[in-house]
Amino acid sequence: MARIALDAMGGDFAPQATVAGALLALAELDPAHSIQLVGSTAVVEAQLRALLDGELSSHAAQRDRLAIVEAPDVIEMTDKPSAVVRGKPNSSMAVGLRLQADGQSDAFVSAGNTGAQMAASMVLLRLHAGLDRPAIVTLFPSARKPVAVLDSGANVDCSPEELVQFARLGATYVECVLARPNPAVGLLSIGEEPEKGNAVTKEAHALLQSAGLNFIGNVEGRDLPAGGTESHPVDVVVCDGFVGNVVLKFYEAIAPLMIGTLRNIGVTAEQLEAGLKHLDYSEYGGAPLLGVKGVSIISHGKSSPRAIKNAVKVAVQAVVSGMNEQIGARLAAAESAA
Amino acid sequence: MARIALDAMGGDFAPQATVAGALLALAELDPAHSIQLVGSTAVVEAQLRALLDGELSSHAAQRDRLAIVEAPDVIEMTDKPSAVVRGKPNSSMAVGLRLQADGQSDAFVSAGNTGAQMAASMVLLRLHAGLDRPAIVTLFPSARKPVAVLDSGANVDCSPEELVQFARLGATYVECVLARPNPAVGLLSIGEEPEKGNAVTKEAHALLQSAGLNFIGNVEGRDLPAGGTESHPVDVVVCDGFVGNVVLKFYEAIAPLMIGTLRNIGVTAEQLEAGLKHLDYSEYGGAPLLGVKGVSIISHGKSSPRAIKNAVKVAVQAVVSGMNEQIGARLAAAESAA
Repeated sequence: MARIALDAMGGDFAPQATVAGALLALAELDPAHSIQLVGSTAVVEAQLRALLDGELSSHAAQRDRLAIVEAPDVIEMTDKPSAVVRGKPNSSMAVGLRLQADGQSDAFVSAGNTGAQMAASMVLLRLHAGLDRPAIVTLFPSARKPVAVLDSGANVDCSPEELVQFARLGATYVECVLARPNPAVGLLSIGEEPEKGNAVTKEAHALLQSAGLNFIGNVEGRDLPAGGTESHPVDVVVCDGFVGNVVLKFYEAIAPLMIGTLRNIGVTAEQLEAGLKHLDYSEYGGAPLLGVKGVSIISHGKSSPRAIKNAVKVAVQAVVSGMNEQIGARLAAAESAA
Repeated sequence: MARIALDAMGGDFAPQATVAGALLALAELDPAHSIQLVGSTAVVEAQLRALLDGELSSHAAQRDRLAIVEAPDVIEMTDKPSAVVRGKPNSSMAVGLRLQADGQSDAFVSAGNTGAQMAASMVLLRLHAGLDRPAIVTLFPSARKPVAVLDSGANVDCSPEELVQFARLGATYVECVLARPNPAVGLLSIGEEPEKGNAVTKEAHALLQSAGLNFIGNVEGRDLPAGGTESHPVDVVVCDGFVGNVVLKFYEAIAPLMIGTLRNIGVTAEQLEAGLKHLDYSEYGGAPLLGVKGVSIISHGKSSPRAIKNAVKVAVQAVVSGMNEQIGARLAAAESAA
């Protein structure tokens, strides 16, 4: 049973996309799970009424598993991330995360200001022992299984030790939430040989070899869309958040470019949908912020109701799989082995 | 009139692809241009005979504009780049670049060991004054015009000053060789705001604002496939060679993935060719190594005859446009302005 707090006010299309996403998620989830919509009660109630009276009238049965939690303050994209918890303690982000810190919720999902969510998650949930920073993990569609890439934007300049921490977080995530045992971990670099790379990756390579992970060595940019090679598929790819964010935004922009190009030459919308569905980001939903003691899922600012629905499902999987407890246990084991 | 030295022995498909590429290039180039095939005379002559007696029999007229320059040593992919000039002075790479240093050739093209080509180019051609390192510039297909990305693999850890040098090299290249006046230069980062990025990009951002270039600020990963935005198209994107190489290899792997996916859903080969032609790397040919006093064009190790042909054409454009002299002049002007 998971209680998911959803930031009803976060994202470019809130509250319409968030409230609709909540209803869609509940329709697909086991009835034991519930959602707490965090935001202005008046705004959320009005939106809920409009949807249930209109396009989502078939979802009335889900209303009972929805609670509304009042949070009157609004976070702007221009708000300084570090000031949100103190400056806007009654914002949907601070209230939603505090529910979890107080044991009244199991996970938090937001499509709002990412920097603010990271900062508030660190303050209100705190980091697991043995970590310097949290990391955002994103699933990249690939020719094989989706590849978990981290960090994809939380940290710009990373130490070799932090890259090892990311590897541990990513491996635990893939094993628990994606149910892939003994995931293969690759280090993103510019050549397969250990001596290829920049100063940080070369040192990280050496550390990863004795980290107790299934480390398969360096991987290259081509291994992200390919999912590794036939003989060496890869599940987790570790990099600093500068490289990870550049590649993520690059990948997000490829699909629209391809679709426009292919429509121009007569490929039909049905062909495209069938062919490119696995490259559609909204299929994958939110990106977990790993390392905090709890579950905090970051959704894209442009999240549609479907993307919100999938982010809520990611949150449920994280809770049900015991991801957070597993991360704590693995980090403690690594500390005591060191 | 340009004399292009082509490394006949370089690349996975040499000498077939290189000799065939030379014949294809000469058929398309102005008759004033010529090619020097550098390699084992016996091997090159045999290959030439086989092609002219066989699939390229219609290209006999091009034979007169082909010279063969003897270079018996062979560079392996495992050779240490820094040892090539001294250790294998009679390799096709060393001989081909020495021709240019001695004024007997105007440009060098190779699909061989990239590290060896860089090292040999620096030793035999030397760097322009005011530069610390050369940079490899690659043209990325985009929804707008191709974007020149540098460095795409020559340098892993770069200083802010080096990124400014790359910006100057790239802008001169785009203006001279691609004939786009006043090219827009962007700095690859993880947000548009100047304060977004890692330590090196933040400092580079400040330096670029007073570098006398058409600097449009930070660009993001999405601006590479998009070519920038409607209101801010971008011609040159500057980054360190680690990020540049990761993104380049990522991009190279996208097209095959897409093609496989789309073929599976019934998109025809003709549709694909029409739609994806501008995303095909072999259309763009070689990547110039900018900063050396001369012209040194790096081709992909897997270059087909068509890719070699296009690399030779890039070399001719570089020579005819006076790229090298322009780079020297711009760097000298920047030095005296500083």
